[in-house]
Amino acid sequence: MRTSIATVSLSGSLTEKLTAASRAGFDGVEIFENDLLASRLAPEEVRERCADLGLSIDLYQPMRDMEAVPEEEFGRNLRRARHKFEVMRRLGADTVLVCSSVHPAAVDDDALAARQLSQLADLASEFGIRIAYEALAWGRHVSTYDHAWHIVETADHPALGTCLDSFHILSRGSDPKAIEDIPGEKIFFLQLADAPLLAMDVLQWSRHYRCFPGQGGFDVAGLVRHVLRAGYDGPLSLEVFNDVFRQAEAGPAAVDAHRSLLVLQESVGPVELPGPVVPTGVAFAELVTPDAEPVCEVLGGLGFARIARHRSKPVDLWQQGEARILVNTGPAVRREGTGLAAIGLESPDPAGAARRAEALLAPVLPRRRAADDAPLDAVAAPDGTELFFCATGRPGLPDWRADFEDVAHNATEPGAHISTKPCVRGIDHLALVQPWHQFDEAALFHRSVLGLLAQESVDVADPYGLLRSRAVTNADGSVRIALSVGAAPSDDTVHAQHIALATDDVVAAARRFLAAGGRLLQIPMNYYDDLAARFEFADGELETYRELGILYDRDAHGEFRHCYTRTVGRVFFELVQRDGGYRGYGAQNAPVRLAAQHLTGG
Amino acid sequence: MRTSIATVSLSGSLTEKLTAASRAGFDGVEIFENDLLASRLAPEEVRERCADLGLSIDLYQPMRDMEAVPEEEFGRNLRRARHKFEVMRRLGADTVLVCSSVHPAAVDDDALAARQLSQLADLASEFGIRIAYEALAWGRHVSTYDHAWHIVETADHPALGTCLDSFHILSRGSDPKAIEDIPGEKIFFLQLADAPLLAMDVLQWSRHYRCFPGQGGFDVAGLVRHVLRAGYDGPLSLEVFNDVFRQAEAGPAAVDAHRSLLVLQESVGPVELPGPVVPTGVAFAELVTPDAEPVCEVLGGLGFARIARHRSKPVDLWQQGEARILVNTGPAVRREGTGLAAIGLESPDPAGAARRAEALLAPVLPRRRAADDAPLDAVAAPDGTELFFCATGRPGLPDWRADFEDVAHNATEPGAHISTKPCVRGIDHLALVQPWHQFDEAALFHRSVLGLLAQESVDVADPYGLLRSRAVTNADGSVRIALSVGAAPSDDTVHAQHIALATDDVVAAARRFLAAGGRLLQIPMNYYDDLAARFEFADGELETYRELGILYDRDAHGEFRHCYTRTVGRVFFELVQRDGGYRGYGAQNAPVRLAAQHLTGG
Repeated sequence: MRTSIATVSLSGSLTEKLTAASRAGFDGVEIFENDLLASRLAPEEVRERCADLGLSIDLYQPMRDMEAVPEEEFGRNLRRARHKFEVMRRLGADTVLVCSSVHPAAVDDDALAARQLSQLADLASEFGIRIAYEALAWGRHVSTYDHAWHIVETADHPALGTCLDSFHILSRGSDPKAIEDIPGEKIFFLQLADAPLLAMDVLQWSRHYRCFPGQGGFDVAGLVRHVLRAGYDGPLSLEVFNDVFRQAEAGPAAVDAHRSLLVLQESVGPVELPGPVVPTGVAFAELVTPDAEPVCEVLGGLGFARIARHRSKPVDLWQQGEARILVNTGPAVRREGTGLAAIGLESPDPAGAARRAEALLAPVLPRRRAADDAPLDAVAAPDGTELFFCATGRPGLPDWRADFEDVAHNATEPGAHISTKPCVRGIDHLALVQPWHQFDEAALFHRSVLGLLAQESVDVADPYGLLRSRAVTNADGSVRIALSVGAAPSDDTVHAQHIALATDDVVAAARRFLAAGGRLLQIPMNYYDDLAARFEFADGELETYRELGILYDRDAHGEFRHCYTRTVGRVFFELVQRDGGYRGYGAQNAPVRLAAQHLTGG
Repeated sequence: MRTSIATVSLSGSLTEKLTAASRAGFDGVEIFENDLLASRLAPEEVRERCADLGLSIDLYQPMRDMEAVPEEEFGRNLRRARHKFEVMRRLGADTVLVCSSVHPAAVDDDALAARQLSQLADLASEFGIRIAYEALAWGRHVSTYDHAWHIVETADHPALGTCLDSFHILSRGSDPKAIEDIPGEKIFFLQLADAPLLAMDVLQWSRHYRCFPGQGGFDVAGLVRHVLRAGYDGPLSLEVFNDVFRQAEAGPAAVDAHRSLLVLQESVGPVELPGPVVPTGVAFAELVTPDAEPVCEVLGGLGFARIARHRSKPVDLWQQGEARILVNTGPAVRREGTGLAAIGLESPDPAGAARRAEALLAPVLPRRRAADDAPLDAVAAPDGTELFFCATGRPGLPDWRADFEDVAHNATEPGAHISTKPCVRGIDHLALVQPWHQFDEAALFHRSVLGLLAQESVDVADPYGLLRSRAVTNADGSVRIALSVGAAPSDDTVHAQHIALATDDVVAAARRFLAAGGRLLQIPMNYYDDLAARFEFADGELETYRELGILYDRDAHGEFRHCYTRTVGRVFFELVQRDGGYRGYGAQNAPVRLAAQHLTGG
């Protein structure tokens, strides 16, 4: 199907919006009136620009408060409409959106509405223009799609059809089934938006909180199925008003938008994408650092050993149990100091995973590798984290470790003097801070591109603002990524990313780390008084947690014990003991942890 | 009355919050449990810190999900409560907030609730603690203040009273009148918060959008009057959950909070402040600049003449009609280049105005003046703008111009070769961009300190985000200040401040400026096509506007014509012709103006 996007969904000048829409692969645009008014381009020039960019102008929008008004008012409306039709002729746009009236003078008279819309359609016909009449969810007298359709049906004018908008229909809780009763050729346009399920005034909800399909709580795909069954064959067009997207860069936002339509089309049938290849584990996490020493000291203290080095790059492989961490001291793309730059995802079909990612518009990364390195398929996540699809010791697939050469162990490696009995089993989860404008995008990306499941979003109080956090996981929890976002755009860099390491005995792991000279984040004593009030512990248990700085949580399924290293650059480590099927990430403890990190400066 | 604030209302660590509350003049605090848990200070140390800061601990909060639960659950609750009472003993806090239960297991049984609360009060009595039971607006079975009071009355326990919270009462639309039926001594606590009138889920509304009294839409003062009539004599305590305040600096936020309580007390009677002295005009606007030339060029082009110079400072007075602009090239406090630093407000009683400002916690500015300069009373607005209370040529009051010496006109002054017939009558309004965290504060400041009236807040679409804008004015419109705020904290400096100059003939004023070599902001032609569609104009009128870049708006009262100079540093000028009682500021045209400014880089 053809895809389109309303210019109001993107930030910037009209030309910036058009360029972004074209680059992201859209076939057309809806031109929002204010974007045209604010542009230096004459309508003819906009038409030309669109043609150059391969974009059709699918809709001009909107006309407001046209119908069901006293005759004198309607006369003025026709005058205004004639001006706008003239602009549309210059634009080369042949469909205009007319929203149901919110005018105080509008009367509750369907026959009058039909008659006036018919007159408007007569005038439109002179310009070769079609009118798409849409029920606003807060329209004064017409607020449901079936009501708008009834008026269109009554008017029975060839240049008058209806426009369906998923937000206006689903926000009111209307049953979209009856859309199938509308003849497909009378559905002149289809606008799509999702939204989080908020109980709030529908006008405010619509103007500030819409999002792209798949990012919210509406069954947009279900609605589209009804529209397709009705026989609609026009474009799928996004119309999203969102305070955050308004500030986001137009380019990435347009890509995000187009991806949401691809995923939507996949779920309703008309588009075939390479199927998702769900990762089955975390092969490695890669840290980049200008100075490896502090990181290696922490890794050594945690019980990791440096076991191999890349043949052609300054990258070391540290391992303990199934947890593998690459330490890259090369000229990394990120110059912000030590940080988590890449994740290796264990993939049953790396090439297939990369094909799906590419089909869903994930930037494919250039392979900066030597001629004889193992092939590695990688894409960039919205936050810039590199995702490698790879295999670790699986028959029939090239092993990414083939590019590494073992290093001989020697006693001078940090931590080598400590017991080598591994405390860490593997990587429990990775926590990635998202750019403020891309939190919703990130969740949709990880769900659609990687086939992960998104959990509920939770708010976490930091001393200096609220954070939001949302985890994406595979079914058995062997891949868990916790996405979080700060309270405001300026907050992007305040909060560090982290690698949570799974252990079967967090107390032993913590003691080992301390014995190796490591420092754990100090947790205030008051926290343990509260634990004592909330839970009953075995003798001495709480004292141990207090001594070591271990945090505790419990849910309906099991228990969670965890502690934190200090922060190195922009990254820290967590030791995690997850028992009995505990599903969370200790969000209950996050405010205390965040406050402690602020107190210690990380 | 004593004033108090919940620590959750301020950002930072517990010690930062306590310090800010004390410095702002609060008498006490409510300690929010999570703030204590996250603190390194033991309860005894918090007690000591508060004593040092002159703060009483008026409330510990909250206990949740205590009452009307099955016996086994209640047993666990008593165990938990005992721990918390022990903490409170160490804190020296004698009142605890118990919120009505939201627990899924809570049963709808008032007798059970009363019995269990009574048992809890028995336990509390052992610690010398009182229980203040409050109805959460979203409580499972108890959600109104009269219901909570009914349960307290039934329990009839000396250590059990009720806590009233203006948000929980007013957000549900409850009539607060029946508060007067509660015996004053059984009202153990009073929490105050205002909120904008939003139609949204009450829990989300409460957790994210509360604000200080006077900043929202509730009649908080009306509620307080009922509570005082009931005989309550405890503290007025602020409990405000707000996503923006969570990020704001604790110090200024606490001052803002305390100011809101002073204003509230003034309106209910118990506090006497110096009365407001409403300014009667704008005496001057002061620009600071490291390089006067570009500004003076614009002023000259607009028809201003440099008429005087300060005797002891590098400050020039430019004048046209009643519009006076000071250009200060001295070592100004602001180093960000040319900007609007101060406003002179024509005051019938400058000293009285300053006394009120000081009583309402506005920072009084040091008088950086020579010994024989005229006295000038000045305070800082929340955004740092200096407000001078002064008189221009009024008998009995010192004239601020006494410090200026006339300069002889000569033909080399910029603009001196242009007709001297003044086009500008005075200053129509001043537009000030507010720091992101202080928009609500600014409106309350200008209302309460200056006695101005606040108009409705409006959203304005900028190409890169939504702005909010709100005007404060005096009754006759001779003082108009438009406050605006960007879409996000990072946006503080994007948008410029401006000085709008009143003219009776914007066309003549614009032509004069162009003739003097000035450049006006170019407005896209598409805007004029839209004007033609929306309004009918006299022959040639629209062509003139199009030629000059004049914008047009109309409301029920009159017409508005305006145009803009280019931006110098962080400031630009607007020429404004306001006819027939038009009340707005051309908000309808702001998106086009903002887009044009982005296109030209200001």
